[in-house]
Order: sequence, then structure tokens, then C-alpha cells
Amino acid sequence: MKLLLDQINSHEDVRGLSRNQLADLCVELRSFLIETILENGGHFAANLGVIELTVALHHQLNLPEDVIVWDVGHQSYAHKVLTGRKEGIKNIRKTHGLSGFPSISESAFDAFGTGHSSTSISAVLGMAQASSFSGKANKHIAVIGDGALTAGQAYEALNHLAETGLDVLVIVNDNQMSIDDNNGNIARILHDAPLAKVFFETLGFSYDYCPEGNSIEAVYDSVAKNIKESKPRILHVRTKKGFGYEAAEKDRIRWHATESMVKVLPDIAPKSKFPKYQEVAGKTLLELAELDDKVVVVTPAMPTGSGLKAFEARYPDRFFDVGIAEQHAVTFSAGLAKEGYRVFCFIYSTFLQRAYDQLIHDVCIQNLPVVFCIDRAGLVGGDGATHHGVFDLAYLKPIPNLDIIAPSSVLQMRDAFYTGLKRIEGPTAIRYPRGRGEVEDFHSALQILIRGELKILQNGYNLAIISVGSCLSEVKKAIERLKELKNRVSLIDLIYLKPLDLKNLKRIFSNHSHILVIENGSLIGGIGEELAALISQWGLSCSIKNLGISDDFVEHGSTSDLLRLNGMDAASIQKKVLELLSH
Amino acid sequence: MKLLLDQINSHEDVRGLSRNQLADLCVELRSFLIETILENGGHFAANLGVIELTVALHHQLNLPEDVIVWDVGHQSYAHKVLTGRKEGIKNIRKTHGLSGFPSISESAFDAFGTGHSSTSISAVLGMAQASSFSGKANKHIAVIGDGALTAGQAYEALNHLAETGLDVLVIVNDNQMSIDDNNGNIARILHDAPLAKVFFETLGFSYDYCPEGNSIEAVYDSVAKNIKESKPRILHVRTKKGFGYEAAEKDRIRWHATESMVKVLPDIAPKSKFPKYQEVAGKTLLELAELDDKVVVVTPAMPTGSGLKAFEARYPDRFFDVGIAEQHAVTFSAGLAKEGYRVFCFIYSTFLQRAYDQLIHDVCIQNLPVVFCIDRAGLVGGDGATHHGVFDLAYLKPIPNLDIIAPSSVLQMRDAFYTGLKRIEGPTAIRYPRGRGEVEDFHSALQILIRGELKILQNGYNLAIISVGSCLSEVKKAIERLKELKNRVSLIDLIYLKPLDLKNLKRIFSNHSHILVIENGSLIGGIGEELAALISQWGLSCSIKNLGISDDFVEHGSTSDLLRLNGMDAASIQKKVLELLSH
Repeated sequence: MKLLLDQINSHEDVRGLSRNQLADLCVELRSFLIETILENGGHFAANLGVIELTVALHHQLNLPEDVIVWDVGHQSYAHKVLTGRKEGIKNIRKTHGLSGFPSISESAFDAFGTGHSSTSISAVLGMAQASSFSGKANKHIAVIGDGALTAGQAYEALNHLAETGLDVLVIVNDNQMSIDDNNGNIARILHDAPLAKVFFETLGFSYDYCPEGNSIEAVYDSVAKNIKESKPRILHVRTKKGFGYEAAEKDRIRWHATESMVKVLPDIAPKSKFPKYQEVAGKTLLELAELDDKVVVVTPAMPTGSGLKAFEARYPDRFFDVGIAEQHAVTFSAGLAKEGYRVFCFIYSTFLQRAYDQLIHDVCIQNLPVVFCIDRAGLVGGDGATHHGVFDLAYLKPIPNLDIIAPSSVLQMRDAFYTGLKRIEGPTAIRYPRGRGEVEDFHSALQILIRGELKILQNGYNLAIISVGSCLSEVKKAIERLKELKNRVSLIDLIYLKPLDLKNLKRIFSNHSHILVIENGSLIGGIGEELAALISQWGLSCSIKNLGISDDFVEHGSTSDLLRLNGMDAASIQKKVLELLSH
Repeated sequence: MKLLLDQINSHEDVRGLSRNQLADLCVELRSFLIETILENGGHFAANLGVIELTVALHHQLNLPEDVIVWDVGHQSYAHKVLTGRKEGIKNIRKTHGLSGFPSISESAFDAFGTGHSSTSISAVLGMAQASSFSGKANKHIAVIGDGALTAGQAYEALNHLAETGLDVLVIVNDNQMSIDDNNGNIARILHDAPLAKVFFETLGFSYDYCPEGNSIEAVYDSVAKNIKESKPRILHVRTKKGFGYEAAEKDRIRWHATESMVKVLPDIAPKSKFPKYQEVAGKTLLELAELDDKVVVVTPAMPTGSGLKAFEARYPDRFFDVGIAEQHAVTFSAGLAKEGYRVFCFIYSTFLQRAYDQLIHDVCIQNLPVVFCIDRAGLVGGDGATHHGVFDLAYLKPIPNLDIIAPSSVLQMRDAFYTGLKRIEGPTAIRYPRGRGEVEDFHSALQILIRGELKILQNGYNLAIISVGSCLSEVKKAIERLKELKNRVSLIDLIYLKPLDLKNLKRIFSNHSHILVIENGSLIGGIGEELAALISQWGLSCSIKNLGISDDFVEHGSTSDLLRLNGMDAASIQKKVLELLSH
């Protein structure tokens, strides 16, 4: 039998189907996504949950004239398939492949780029206002998850939207989950449809409820009914993350996203011997919590991603998942720290951008000793431009009172955490990458890092390489290949970005003709620039060359590809070293 | 008759009063604040509105064991008077005087520093959680305005708080205002007490209402009733901004804050001939709106402060005050820009920190041509550490796709706005200071600034001064005093921070022995560092010295004092120039 999906090459093709073909389309779409994502990797469970909703919307809307903004955007795979990108799904998130999120540069059907949570209502409201100005009668739809409703921006937007009278339909895709369980207050409200009705009506919206969001018939009718309205309105749709794939329905956290099947099936893939930074981070916190009963952990909705599930299980009372609410997470941490608690606030580098003001205003101005565990610093791979942690060094360094440590290994990260615990004079930021460390056994004795002290790993007389954090592994590979030049090259692990080891840096700058700085962050505002200014201020004459992320957003791809494309892999470093030594 | 207030030197003294003395205390406190603020300047109307609430809380609480966090904090003057700081009020906000906001380094009675809005519930929740850990039975109170409830962080915190069962009383001080009118959705809900009850109860709180928040009897009873509860609860208190001072009751916006009376009474103080940057900004937008009917303006609750009242009056449909909601303001702007509208998004430098992620994620990654009018860049004076706009250059420069212009005069700011209007290829940030320009007549013909082009204002052969934005006025004064060295000193108005004028900079660096950079922002991550790195990259040998804000939070004070204390006034620049020329 010929598949419907094979006949779908454009939005027009979807529109041309009869309504009674849509159930089959959903079945095929689900099979296709399960097969393709399992084989190639990608976000999984959320995509399976919205297949019926996506088909219902696409069949009834006139895209791209009408507008759908997919909040967070990792659930947009079916949308991509139905807008001419079926072939691309197998290379989604890969180097030069499709983005894992909606992207306005990828397709006109992606009305607005997403990636971070809770922006959709704001964006769609702006677009609806524009349509109103232009006299366009198109439809504007935000699809936002229950998890994303925990972020304040969603309320800011709802407050504005309610007043406008604009033709915006907010579909609350209630799958009762963030990446982890969404157990908060909003989940409680949504769990009880009559309460949800009161809540949204009080906020100024009409409200409708579709309890069977994975029934194409039910969700089609709900969408039909609500699309034709023209006021700000809420359609609350219950869906199931992972719907139609039993393992994912049962373990929705595990199946939030997946690498390719070859890697994930335990009987096929050998388990790596090297634990992830995240695993080591979580286990180290268990040790710290034993050492000091004032240790508490705060995370904005990333307990699994941050490696904190064991901590949560062991110390539920000292563990706070506050929802997708980075702003609150940081100020709440400040309040705890003010009263003497030793808060470890775990936030991905890219999401800490959400709490930049709170970091400055509530923590650093008051010099409160919160420890920020900044995960996913540097390039993160498949998530791409919205998720790379390449700005944190530049936005953190100017903040007074904040110590900044970039450990170069999981063991050093453990010591950095311990150092953060012991620093009660002020706040500490510790940034570490996504991915695995390079030791099997991380059970080291915890030691305090001497504040502001760099480490000289190799002594040479001509060129000094100053390595920031996890860049060290590529640097070491490069040096390994240049063994014959060993006595000419010094290797420095900077460790502390703030305060800097001025004494040793001055000596190093004086003793070497060339300085090569490698940092996994933006070159503009980076440590390389700061060191260049110091060299000039000290009246020294060594040259300084900085490697890092240049002034472009970095796309998605494998981390090794991205390192290479950004001139930060071992081969590029090797080349740069040779070039400098030839001067 | 001896005044009660003269007998109040400590919190204990307040506690020692009988309840029937409190009405008199309120009267005296009001007279004292009116007199003192009128004479010396400071936040006015909000302070008069909470006198009864403050007295009721202080008489019933055991401070500082119990905790009050004053959201935004500019309404804390009565609190300061009642905790031993009466004498200090006359020097509030002045150099070395009391802070205009609660400050933990100023007094143990200031439980948590505030300044930016909507942090109080998060902070007090952290402190209440700490008390719960420690088995302390103290009381935790957040006093938050209706305006502050428009910000998302307040909801993030309420969502968390509702679930905890902790002993936190959230007092909603509903004066129906932000600095400007608070007309939004939240205002609508609060306006209708039964609706507010439903709203907060749905969110998981018990709710009580005190319609007469400026009656000491009424508010005392409400506080008494609610203090003794121990669950998360809301007390909604209606107050009147400016209560007890007729002019302020009638024009609450005008009387939000005041300079000293001598300066504000029109028959005493001569009106300055030089218009403020804010006035010029607002009037320029009127011109742009005439030129292009796609021009719209977005502000997060700062229409008056940003000089936009005339625009709002003339183009109400093209003007969006979205409440204290910077995150939403930026993404909403992005949505409008995506559809071809020319959005001018006005945000103070310090508040743009709140929308840092949206700026990167929604505007710059998508390269949408929003124009950011970044007001209050540089040192702002009396508002102090929480409000100085000294981080924006460092946090903006690393963001790809963003043009950054720092005009050195109101006329150049006009041209920068016009340039922003004409740049549809991507976003533009224009940063300008608080305060007055240096021309009387700003009715210049609008011209496009050539992208990335600096301006050489004076040619010399030895030292090149590179001035950023409004630093130019102090630099010019310094140079004026060094006329005899004129032929040795070049003066450059950088104008564009991004893209940089690499061609001219290279020539300048090649032609001068010394470079002196002056920027009204953080030295770390500043333009001086970036230029130092360029000098090294180009293999040039000129020295470079950077003046700007060093690695400490800058306190409050007069702008002239602060410039001097930070080595950025004309005298300091003059000294530095002489020092460099003597080498």
C-alpha cells in the first residue's frame, strides 16, 4: 500500500487530504518519527505527543500565512515533516543538517525561532499586533507546554495579550512534564480543568479543554472550534509525551531525547567507562551534603540533565526544582545564602542568561556566597545556536565580587565545588562542559583550589599556551603531536578566570615571546582580550593570539565538527602553535 | 509638644509605643518625610503611601528577627526612619549618604537589598526556607506593589511559594501605579477584590483585603490578623501614592521622585536651557513616526522616564507600555520586527539585564532589526549600585549581529535613532546617558551615521584619546585645559562600538605612541580591552591605557562625585594625559 506520507511534500499536500485520511497520516507520521529518531537521534517523546495536534493544525491552517510558534521548539519535528522537510529529519541536529528547533532561516513555515522556553506567546503577540496594523486577518497560534508556563515570561505575555483583543490562540500542550516531572503549582491548576478554566478566565481569556489530545478526532474538533474565534483564547489540550511508543510512555524522562539507537541500546553499545561531568557533579554534591548539612541544591527544571536525580532521592528536603524559572531560582538562592545556607545553584550556561539581572542585583551586589554550577559551558553540539554556552565568560567577568573557575577536568571540577563550598566571603561561578571527563574513577579526595592560582603544566621558553577549562584536552592532544618542540612551549591551566593570577601571569608574559590563549567562549569580552590589556598595561612586549568563538552564532553539529570549524580542535591548535613558533 | 518621632531612635522605641499613639506617629512621620524629601530630594509619593503600613508592621513585628523585604525598595524611607536612620534621610541618595534602597550593608533591619522590581517574593521565600531548616519561627513578609506584579519573576516565585506551606505573608501594596499608571491586566484583577480573591486562591493562597491601607486602624488590624497565620498568604492593601500631600496625590507620576525643592519649584529654579537626552529621544521618535508609519515604540513601564509621554499621546496605537516586563518587551518587539515593523524598544541599561536572554535568543540569533534605545547608560547618580548602567557594553559586545552605537551628544543620538530606523539588516543598540545634553536647540536635520565609522575631532601626533559616547564632554573639558599640548593629542569619538572602524583604528594605533580609552562602563569586557587585543593582533607597539569603571560596584552619589571617584572626570583625564605625554 502506498503511504500517505510519501505523497506529502508540501503544506498544500496536507491541505489536500480529506479529513478521514488524517488518522492514517498520524499513524504513518508516528512510525516515521519513531524509526527515524531512533536511528539518527533527536528529541523524541515530546514529538510523539503532538503528532495529532500538529496534523489538526496543519490541515486547518493556511501556512505560512497563518502563524504557529512552537514554544521551546523541540516538538516541531512533525511540523517539519509536513512542511517539506521529511528527508531532512534523518540529519536533524547534525552538522549542516536541519536544526532541531524551528528556524526562520530554514523555512518560511517556521514563523519564529525557538529553543529556550516560554517565548512563544510574546512572539506571537508581536506578530498578531503586526497583522492588526496591516489589516491582515491571519491566525496566530502559540503552542506552549505546561512546563513552559512555569516561566515568568509566559505570564508577562499573557497579561499583555489579555488586554489586546487580538486574534491569538494559545494552545497549552499539557503533557504534565518539563523534561522532568512538572509537579508545581501550574501542574496542579492544569490537572483540574475547572480550576484551569477559572484561572485563565480570571486572567482574561476564554478557555476550552480537550482532554484527548492524542485522538485526532477530538483534537481536530477542538482546534476547529477555537481557530474560528478571534479573541485571545486558551485551548488546553491534554497529550501524552511519548504517545505510541511504549518505552517512552513509561519513561518519559529517559526518552526526552535520544542519541541514535546504536548508541543507546545497552546490549549493542559499550557503556563508556568515563563518567560525564554531570554525573560527577551530582555525586560530588552528595559528598558535600554529607560534609555540611547546610548544603542545598537549586535547579530550574533540570534535575536529570544536571545529574541531580541521586541527590534529589537522597536529600529531597534539600533539593529544590523550582520549574523553568531561572530568575526565581537565582534570587531564591540568594535568600537562602543570606541566611547562611550553602546553595549550589545548577543552571546551564545558556539559561543563566535568563537570570543575568538577578545574578548581578541579588547575588553579586550583596556579595552572597551562592555557588553557581554552570553546566553546558562552551559548545554543546546538536542543540546549536540557541544553546551553546559561549557568552557566560564575557557576561560574568565584568561582575564584581564573583569568583569564576573553569575546571579543566572532572577532578578539578570536584575541587572547584569544594572550593565553592568553603568560600563564604562571596559568590563563586564554576563552569564546566557537556560531556564526559577523561578519568574512569573520579573518587578523589576533595581539595581546595588556591584562590586565583593558575597551574603550570609544562615549562618552555618561547610560547606559553594559556588554556581555559575544558579546552585543555584538545590543547594536550596538540602538544602531544609537537613533542619535539616541548622545551619551547609552556602550558598553563588558567583555572581561575577571576581573580586572575596576576603574579604568575606577569612572569609568564615576561618570559615568553608569544602567548596563545584558548577559551571555549566568545573572543569579544573574553579572557584573551583581558590578558592583552594586561600585557599592555604592564608595558610588556610579548605577542598575544586568542583562539575562541568569533563573532558569529555557531550552528548545530557534532562537537568535534564544531571545534574544528571554530579553529579550536587539536589540529587547529597545533597549526597555530607552529605558526607562532616560526616567528 | 514633644514629638513622638524625636523619641524614636530604634525599633525598640517603636515597639514601646502604645497602639493609640500610632496615628500620631504616622502624622509626624508623614510631615517629616514631606519636609525632608522636599528639601533634600528622593523618592516621594510611594513613601507617603506606605507610612501606615510601615508603622503597623514595625509595631507588630520583632525586627530584624522577623523579616520584611520591600520590593523595589524606594518606598522604604519610613522603614529607615523607624530603624535608627532618621538623621540620615536628609542625605539619602547623596554621596556617602544613606542608600535610597534597602541595603544589607547599611542596616541589619534591611533584610535584603532591592532596587530592581519583583524580587521580593523570591528572596523572602529563600529566607523562609532557611528559617524552616533552622527551626526558627520568625515571620517573613514581602511588600510588593501592584506594578511589580506585572513582572514574570513574581509569578515564578508565587508558583513556588504556594507549594511550600511556609510562613510567608505577601502584602500587595496596591497603589494602582508603577512609576506611571499601571493599567494592565493585573491592575484590572486587583481593581476588583472578589476577582483578586479568586485569582490568588486559584494560585494557591489564602487572600485578605484591606481597602483602607492609609488608615492606621484598618491596616493595623489587617496586619494583625494576617501576621498570626502561618501559611503562604496574600494581604491585598489599597494605598494611595502621595497620600497626605495634595500635589502628589493629584500628580503621582510627577511626584514619584523629586530633586530638592530649590531645584523643582519653577519660580525658584531657573529652567535649564539644555534639554535632557530623554526629551530629545522622545521628540525624535515623533519625527521618525512621521517619516515611517511602521515605527512603533515599546517600553516596559517607563513612558515618563524615557521621555515618551508625547509619543504616547500622539500615537497611542503605536505605543506599547507592557508593564515591568522586560523579557516580554524584547520578544514582543522581535515578533513585531519579524513582520516588518520598525520597533524602538526603550529600556534602561540596568533593566535590559532582565532581558539579556531574549535579546540574544529572540532578536540577535534571528537578526531581527529591533532598535534598542538603551537609556541610563553609564553612571546614573543617586540610585546607585543597583541602577548604574555600567555593564551593557560588556554584555552586548559579544552578541553577534548587533550594531552598537554610543552617541556623544543629543544630536548624534538623533542621528543614531535615524540610522537604526534605516538599518533593516539587523538589530541596533543605541546607548545614551541620563541627564542633559549640551545644546539648546536640537532640531537638527536627521542624518545616517556611516556604519562603523569613528570621527577624528582633533589631530595630534603623540597621544590618541578614544572617547566612548557621553564621556566626550569630560574629555573635551580636559583637553581644553591642555591647549598648549594640542598638537600632540588626537581626539577620537568612537561612535560605533560595533562594528569597529578597524581601518581608522589601525592607522591611529600606528601613528601614536599612546592610546587612552575612556568608556563609561566596566573595564573588564570593555572596549579598551578589545582595542588592546587588536593592537597586539596587529603587531603594533603603541601603549594603551583604559579609563572606566573598575571591578567594584559603584555606590550612589552625585554623578560629578562618582566620575571623580572613578577617575573619569576632566581633572582625572587631564592628569592621565599629562602622565602619558611625559613618557
